[in-house]
Amino acid sequence: QLTSGKGRCSCIDKGSDFIQQKALGKIEVIPKSSSCDHVEIIATLKPTGEQRCLNPNSKWVRKMVTA
Amino acid sequence: QLTSGKGRCSCIDKGSDFIQQKALGKIEVIPKSSSCDHVEIIATLKPTGEQRCLNPNSKWVRKMVTA
Repeated sequence: QLTSGKGRCSCIDKGSDFIQQKALGKIEVIPKSSSCDHVEIIATLKPTGEQRCLNPNSKWVRKMVTA
Repeated sequence: QLTSGKGRCSCIDKGSDFIQQKALGKIEVIPKSSSCDHVEIIATLKPTGEQRCLNPNSKWVRKMVTA
């Protein structure tokens, strides 16, 4: 559910609230900017390398990126 | 100040509390794991592509990755 459009938000919906720890690879955070008015958090899943949007308002996600 | 050692924390010191918005490229978050007992936040700077550790406990950094 990632858009490929330039100059817009990357995630179409609010994203996942939780992902299995063992499936969790890299996490990329895209700070809000002129092209998207809120932070976006995108996880790369193991082993497929699939990219999945995470919900920045989820308690679990917040803990993952700050704890 | 990134170590290249496999199976250890990537950041040697606590990292930067703030980075100029216009120098801020991608932000990668490495959740705590068996190889590093705390979350690590690594920014790629523009235009050089230099990687810089950010301080997960800095208010500004937390705002960047969750707001």
